[in-house]
Amino acid sequence: MQQLKGRDFIVTQEWDMDELRAVLDLARAMKADRFSSSWTRLLEFRTFLMFFYNPSVRTRQSFEAAATELGGHAQFLEPKAMRLKTAKTAGETVEDAAKVMSRYAVGLGIRILEDKVPYYGAGDELLREYAKWATIPVINMADDKFHPCQGMADIMGWEEWLGDLKGKNFLLTWGQGALARSWCSVQEALLVASRFGMNVTLAYPEGYDLDPEVIRWTEGNCKANGAEFKITHDPEEGYHGAHIVYSRNWVSPDAYKDGVFDKQGEIEKARKYTGWTTTAERMALTDNAIFTHPMPVDRGSEVTDEVASGPRSAIYDIAENRLHVQKAVMALTMSDVDNEYLLDLARQTLEGKAE
Amino acid sequence: MQQLKGRDFIVTQEWDMDELRAVLDLARAMKADRFSSSWTRLLEFRTFLMFFYNPSVRTRQSFEAAATELGGHAQFLEPKAMRLKTAKTAGETVEDAAKVMSRYAVGLGIRILEDKVPYYGAGDELLREYAKWATIPVINMADDKFHPCQGMADIMGWEEWLGDLKGKNFLLTWGQGALARSWCSVQEALLVASRFGMNVTLAYPEGYDLDPEVIRWTEGNCKANGAEFKITHDPEEGYHGAHIVYSRNWVSPDAYKDGVFDKQGEIEKARKYTGWTTTAERMALTDNAIFTHPMPVDRGSEVTDEVASGPRSAIYDIAENRLHVQKAVMALTMSDVDNEYLLDLARQTLEGKAE
Amino acid sequence: MQQLKGRDFIVTQEWDMDELRAVLDLARAMKADRFSSSWTRLLEFRTFLMFFYNPSVRTRQSFEAAATELGGHAQFLEPKAMRLKTAKTAGETVEDAAKVMSRYAVGLGIRILEDKVPYYGAGDELLREYAKWATIPVINMADDKFHPCQGMADIMGWEEWLGDLKGKNFLLTWGQGALARSWCSVQEALLVASRFGMNVTLAYPEGYDLDPEVIRWTEGNCKANGAEFKITHDPEEGYHGAHIVYSRNWVSPDAYKDGVFDKQGEIEKARKYTGWTTTAERMALTDNAIFTHPMPVDRGSEVTDEVASGPRSAIYDIAENRLHVQKAVMALTMSDVDNEYLLDLARQTLEGKAE
Repeated sequence: MQQLKGRDFIVTQEWDMDELRAVLDLARAMKADRFSSSWTRLLEFRTFLMFFYNPSVRTRQSFEAAATELGGHAQFLEPKAMRLKTAKTAGETVEDAAKVMSRYAVGLGIRILEDKVPYYGAGDELLREYAKWATIPVINMADDKFHPCQGMADIMGWEEWLGDLKGKNFLLTWGQGALARSWCSVQEALLVASRFGMNVTLAYPEGYDLDPEVIRWTEGNCKANGAEFKITHDPEEGYHGAHIVYSRNWVSPDAYKDGVFDKQGEIEKARKYTGWTTTAERMALTDNAIFTHPMPVDRGSEVTDEVASGPRSAIYDIAENRLHVQKAVMALTMSDVDNEYLLDLARQTLEGKAE
Repeated sequence: MQQLKGRDFIVTQEWDMDELRAVLDLARAMKADRFSSSWTRLLEFRTFLMFFYNPSVRTRQSFEAAATELGGHAQFLEPKAMRLKTAKTAGETVEDAAKVMSRYAVGLGIRILEDKVPYYGAGDELLREYAKWATIPVINMADDKFHPCQGMADIMGWEEWLGDLKGKNFLLTWGQGALARSWCSVQEALLVASRFGMNVTLAYPEGYDLDPEVIRWTEGNCKANGAEFKITHDPEEGYHGAHIVYSRNWVSPDAYKDGVFDKQGEIEKARKYTGWTTTAERMALTDNAIFTHPMPVDRGSEVTDEVASGPRSAIYDIAENRLHVQKAVMALTMSDVDNEYLLDLARQTLEGKAE
Repeated sequence: MQQLKGRDFIVTQEWDMDELRAVLDLARAMKADRFSSSWTRLLEFRTFLMFFYNPSVRTRQSFEAAATELGGHAQFLEPKAMRLKTAKTAGETVEDAAKVMSRYAVGLGIRILEDKVPYYGAGDELLREYAKWATIPVINMADDKFHPCQGMADIMGWEEWLGDLKGKNFLLTWGQGALARSWCSVQEALLVASRFGMNVTLAYPEGYDLDPEVIRWTEGNCKANGAEFKITHDPEEGYHGAHIVYSRNWVSPDAYKDGVFDKQGEIEKARKYTGWTTTAERMALTDNAIFTHPMPVDRGSEVTDEVASGPRSAIYDIAENRLHVQKAVMALTMSDVDNEYLLDLARQTLEGKAE
């Protein structure tokens, strides 16, 4: 494994499997012994900058807590205070902003979703523009394409509940609802599920295709692992034999009108598709599957209360894992401590707990 | 005394006297030796979440400083970023939000006042809904009914100025002004003054009744202590023989119109009532009383500059005490250190200072 | 040198040269050994309050990081949450606000620019009103007149690039552009450049005079140092023989109309003045001058990309220096450690690095 110090984390697909495994190992150790002095000084006196183009509750809380638990401090910044240069307006270039931030901080997190940009992918592009100029790692805190920390929290949680995921059956299904949600979490889920060896079924109403590049990557990942990848437009078929059920609303590929994200239009469009709720009846078709969701859950639409609060719901564990995987990513990419030394500490912690 | 670890703090009336005493003892020790290593590691690397539905200056500053001085970190959160589920709108349930926060943090403070809710008491209800689902303590940072940390800061300050409060005379009087203020501070003041053995006089213009339940509790507290409780609508009568004078504007019980807090209407209504200012002339009628107020003071309306900045004004000491009592409450309810051990440290600190 | 503990920092002109030198010495040592334990506990568990009447990116980031690196915590406060008493409205007095903040914190930073006040100088007056009542140091984080931390970062950077500044030639030139910028940075630059012994040329289009008092101070500083001070309205003349070129847009003295800062009017007015850009051709007229700017840079208007990103551009170093000088000012004015002891540590650090 290459040293991760200084590496950006924009999508899991761009990291090798042993690098993702390193994150998971360290995250598990950090969860097992949360306030161990092994971790609490890793970013001592250091600053992590968080840029929230979009507001957030869970992402804010978990990243800020992650910095605190590593001994550092996360600054909560809302770029409304920032005049960036555009084709039409005077302002600062991303180059200048990123170069100065690199003098103050050890890392930069950015969150920017589809409703803040003029077309799909523009958020991810801005993030990569920051990453190009910053000399510190840029961490994707959710953009319009990807959400790597959610993906890592998912994998960590699924392994906690199910052990080795190889050959298990993963259902990712569109969920009805009026929240016009981003593609980032579900696309990242496809990528990690296929990377870690699962058979993937993707179910959604016609017209709700995701990014073709993500689909190609997912197909490639499955193929490399000898696993299956299937797309269906039947709301029930994928439940049969599933070990993990992930339901989540998302918007259609036609969400942008003349450079504006038409949220209201997407909400209207989604109203037409009913029968896409995860229910106890459907869960009964599975192989005792766990229920997973990146939260916030739209109860009654994406999933019933019975399932979301039921004994096979992994949602709170996975939400907690956001904290641990983010701490691990930050420690590996931003601290001065050698990666191998950190991973040794992780192994010792996990062996100590296992004894 | 029961261990306070994990306890919510929503109103002083729900804590036993020995529990309130424990808070005061620890707060006094923390004030006496503010940066002692006895306290500065109690919440090290831990996160305290602060939810401000209403903005605030002093509450924000004192809670965030409290977390810092205990070695931890307070996150400043404004729930505008949060879509909660309501009868009409999709969003997250309080159950889901509270359960996830409990994974990240050691405590949750909430501030929500009358102008953010559709009826009196709805703020306090939301707080209790969070407390129901959270597995970490919920601290009331002022809701539409109560303000327990202000009440504790008041008591701490009054005792600093006057010693034992038993049998002393407490005047709480409505103050004129155009700020349409909450009931929370004055109701909490009634509760603590009566709890700690004072004779209580409550003075206000007709039409400005407070919550009948708080009045009943105050009566009960006075009776249990063999003290008197009196309500008067005369603006001057209560000053005679008073040891503490507390003047503060508050709104009428008719402030809600069709589910909306009618702030402007309350401001207009209050304009009719003059002659309700605490002046030096009125203070001369007292038994050398101190002047107390939860701040911000509306000078010239609630009280004259001469009194607010005079030698018997306790307002800055009490504002400072917000910090100390909040540190004590947070330490007792959120730290891993045993309550009895903490209180032993407090006693040693206070004895050391007394020598 | 007098002890700086407790001193306000509102404009460099009000501090003695040996006091400014002390800031620079300590800042250089802090830059040389950024996370040395000599500095990381200086404000441990202490709170620095930051009041941003105007938003900011760099100032926020650098002050908050400064507090973190000194072991303390900076609270980010936006005074929209604060009702201050004015001639027309009820609210809290600055006296009350400042006295309470002094109980919670070890220092108070304030940022308030021309667009938030009714006339030039009103921002600086508010800052001095806070300083009058606060018993903790007030640090100017940029007001409508001065920006002392920017001035110190400038001097530190210029010395890093050029060594002793005595007798060097400093050009401060108006820059074209549509950003209607404050006088604070350029006025502070005039003051420090003249204080540190440079010959100063100030170039701007007729109608863009700066504050006459600042001009008088600058003249006086130059005279005391046996240096020259010159004002020109020729956009090119000052480049000849310059060692430092500072270009920056600023508004005219007629920016206020009826108590309102007319930003749009100033943008329109500035459009008429072209030919005021710092270009490579003009830089070729200098004595191999460095380019300096307080950022954000309006590239293409104030300066070309070729110069701003060129090998003689000091802009990122100077932006970084904001952090170091602010740490030094905070340490000297707010920490409990004796100034002389701190400066001894600084000397040892710098000698150790020089060996």
